[in-house]
Amino acid sequence: MDTDRLETFSDGVFAIAITLLVLGIEVPPFSSGLGTELMGLWPSYLAYVVSFLVIGAIWINHHAMFGHVVRADGTLLLLNLLQLMVVAFLPFPTAVLARAATEGIDQPVATAFYGATLFVLGVFVNVMWAYAARGRRLLGAQLTPDAASEIGRRFLIGPSGYGVATVIGLVVPSAALLLFLLLNVFYLCPRRQDKATLGGPADEPANEASGDGTGRA
Amino acid sequence: MDTDRLETFSDGVFAIAITLLVLGIEVPPFSSGLGTELMGLWPSYLAYVVSFLVIGAIWINHHAMFGHVVRADGTLLLLNLLQLMVVAFLPFPTAVLARAATEGIDQPVATAFYGATLFVLGVFVNVMWAYAARGRRLLGAQLTPDAASEIGRRFLIGPSGYGVATVIGLVVPSAALLLFLLLNVFYLCPRRQDKATLGGPADEPANEASGDGTGRA
Amino acid sequence: MDTDRLETFSDGVFAIAITLLVLGIEVPPFSSGLGTELMGLWPSYLAYVVSFLVIGAIWINHHAMFGHVVRADGTLLLLNLLQLMVVAFLPFPTAVLARAATEGIDQPVATAFYGATLFVLGVFVNVMWAYAARGRRLLGAQLTPDAASEIGRRFLIGPSGYGVATVIGLVVPSAALLLFLLLNVFYLCPRRQDKATLGGPADEPANEASGDGTGRA
Amino acid sequence: MDTDRLETFSDGVFAIAITLLVLGIEVPPFSSGLGTELMGLWPSYLAYVVSFLVIGAIWINHHAMFGHVVRADGTLLLLNLLQLMVVAFLPFPTAVLARAATEGIDQPVATAFYGATLFVLGVFVNVMWAYAARGRRLLGAQLTPDAASEIGRRFLIGPSGYGVATVIGLVVPSAALLLFLLLNVFYLCPRRQDKATLGGPADEPANEASGDGTGRA
Repeated sequence: MDTDRLETFSDGVFAIAITLLVLGIEVPPFSSGLGTELMGLWPSYLAYVVSFLVIGAIWINHHAMFGHVVRADGTLLLLNLLQLMVVAFLPFPTAVLARAATEGIDQPVATAFYGATLFVLGVFVNVMWAYAARGRRLLGAQLTPDAASEIGRRFLIGPSGYGVATVIGLVVPSAALLLFLLLNVFYLCPRRQDKATLGGPADEPANEASGDGTGRA
Repeated sequence: MDTDRLETFSDGVFAIAITLLVLGIEVPPFSSGLGTELMGLWPSYLAYVVSFLVIGAIWINHHAMFGHVVRADGTLLLLNLLQLMVVAFLPFPTAVLARAATEGIDQPVATAFYGATLFVLGVFVNVMWAYAARGRRLLGAQLTPDAASEIGRRFLIGPSGYGVATVIGLVVPSAALLLFLLLNVFYLCPRRQDKATLGGPADEPANEASGDGTGRA
Repeated sequence: MDTDRLETFSDGVFAIAITLLVLGIEVPPFSSGLGTELMGLWPSYLAYVVSFLVIGAIWINHHAMFGHVVRADGTLLLLNLLQLMVVAFLPFPTAVLARAATEGIDQPVATAFYGATLFVLGVFVNVMWAYAARGRRLLGAQLTPDAASEIGRRFLIGPSGYGVATVIGLVVPSAALLLFLLLNVFYLCPRRQDKATLGGPADEPANEASGDGTGRA
Repeated sequence: MDTDRLETFSDGVFAIAITLLVLGIEVPPFSSGLGTELMGLWPSYLAYVVSFLVIGAIWINHHAMFGHVVRADGTLLLLNLLQLMVVAFLPFPTAVLARAATEGIDQPVATAFYGATLFVLGVFVNVMWAYAARGRRLLGAQLTPDAASEIGRRFLIGPSGYGVATVIGLVVPSAALLLFLLLNVFYLCPRRQDKATLGGPADEPANEASGDGTGRA
């Protein structure tokens, strides 16, 4: 199996999981004034935004990774499936987190559950990269060993940050949520992205077949 | 990242969000005659139609935009993600609007909430275009500066109309709903579309690789 | 906009709507023996199968149509959006039909509501073809006028059959359901399909760019 | 219809069904301590993992099959639709199984229902391959008759294993669940996959149009 299909399938799962997040926001009961009820759902909106940015960042990251990974084998396929399994699971801890914050109970547990999911997701991303980069077995020729190591170091930021935020969340839930948000804003920061995603060598020849001369990046 | 993948991912989110709208229509309780109950759900059907046309129009608009935007950078990626975040959120205010109209309560708030979502969506579309068009940084060479300005002006109609309809909705909810419908019918009007979408210069070289000579538009 | 994107977006909606159908089957309450409860859900399974075949048939039909339609304009885009709007709506009447049959009440109304949805879907398919075929405005050059008329006649079978079944459903609901099933089995009959879908002229040059010599149909 | 579209549509259904599985995990009622409640949902997590791996394995299998099947006819299209119908149905028995295990009642029935669904799925996969391979009617030229027979034999493992596990599930439900898990872990085992999926002849010329020289597998 070439990486194209793996990427297309993964993109499908990313797009669906990101769009299913909205189903976690429950229509209020219309019992105490809709305006108040809609405003009272702010934790649901916040959880929606954070998880949307998380999946968006993981998606961009996935593409950045497959700008360098040019071959797929069975192990990579399995590791990718495990990563998608966590991505597709995310709407559940998101809904749990939103409910806990809305009802104002069990927030440390809910935040830790959410953070633990993100932590596992970050670990799987790192395992996948480590497997692909070990001995450069699945990497394209244009990526220098130094650049590969640098990418591996960058990938460690995710689970580290999520892990720290999770531990903090057990004590101060709202601080953890803020950290999750900041981590993603940092991750999605355009300057970082341009370096990580767009500045890499053009290892995607399949999409470059037509020399169109329009300067597409 | 080239625009192809950004577009494919966006298309996935558009297609999923548009298809999830139906989940906002609740199966009636079968307590007072199904015929009456199904007819009583007309606000749900209307909200379904309006939101379907909104997402359809935004999808067509997105493609029209990426007929001219031929490069992507990190900022564009982030702005696109924000636009998708609002699109994927739309099933929620749609369900709220339908419930309010079915139960006949809190309609001004529900309509304003719905309209505000559309307004934010329209603003994000404009910000995205403004970013891409500023100094022509991400535009294809065939688009003249005048045409770019003209497109920018056309994009302003959306948030303006939605904003006005939202304010009206606070007073006369049903009039706002009618306005949302008319704005989309206007937007989807074939003649407008042909000018906006199909008459533009062919800035999509990646899809034109095979000179097939069949006159595909 | 070329037909490729219209088809890709439509395929997404077809795939999502067909997969959302399962959400209409409610997990039983586990109160009177799961075995009995699961068997009592047979109307839900039947409705699932019928709607799955309906969307599958419409999807195949859509591709057959776009084997001949090689250009898209704004009107076609709008007509296609209307067709998708009904396809994406189908999970709702499916759930209503299943509930009515499971509870044994209001079956004539539920069947008629379901049938009416299929009837409208069939009408939209015909309007779309009629628009594309009128004066051969959007058809490929290889399709003869006789073949185009023949296709138009075939498309009329759908709404006619659905219309008749709907009227029958008002009197004998179960007979209508059987008719919906038979109509789709007939429609999906491989010999019919081979003639309709695969035997047509190869009007899809974009997918045929690589002369690969492997005899792909 | 060529196999590309059939595969794209199927991939869509696989990706959606796999992502919808999470909707079967119900947000707990927050009544007896969230930590306890979240841990009490372990059967839901386990069912999620098993079904995720099942659909993932079927997806990989589907691609492996279409590495050899290079032509589609109406019968194949119909058989493929039937296979997808079972895949898209899987979230329902998954939710039933999770509920039964969580509540500790009716587990033999729930396990048998789940296993029977997997058994039917496995049978449909075999029927599809048998049809395509009969007289080599839809196979690519590079696949030797011996390799085709070998693939057919491998495909028989699925329904056999699922059938045995289902019968066991009627007596010892938890043993069946373990068997479902092991069967998939076995199926997804990288060494097996490399032989089945990646070692096959390159029968997918459409994706190989650009001789890019980067050694993509």
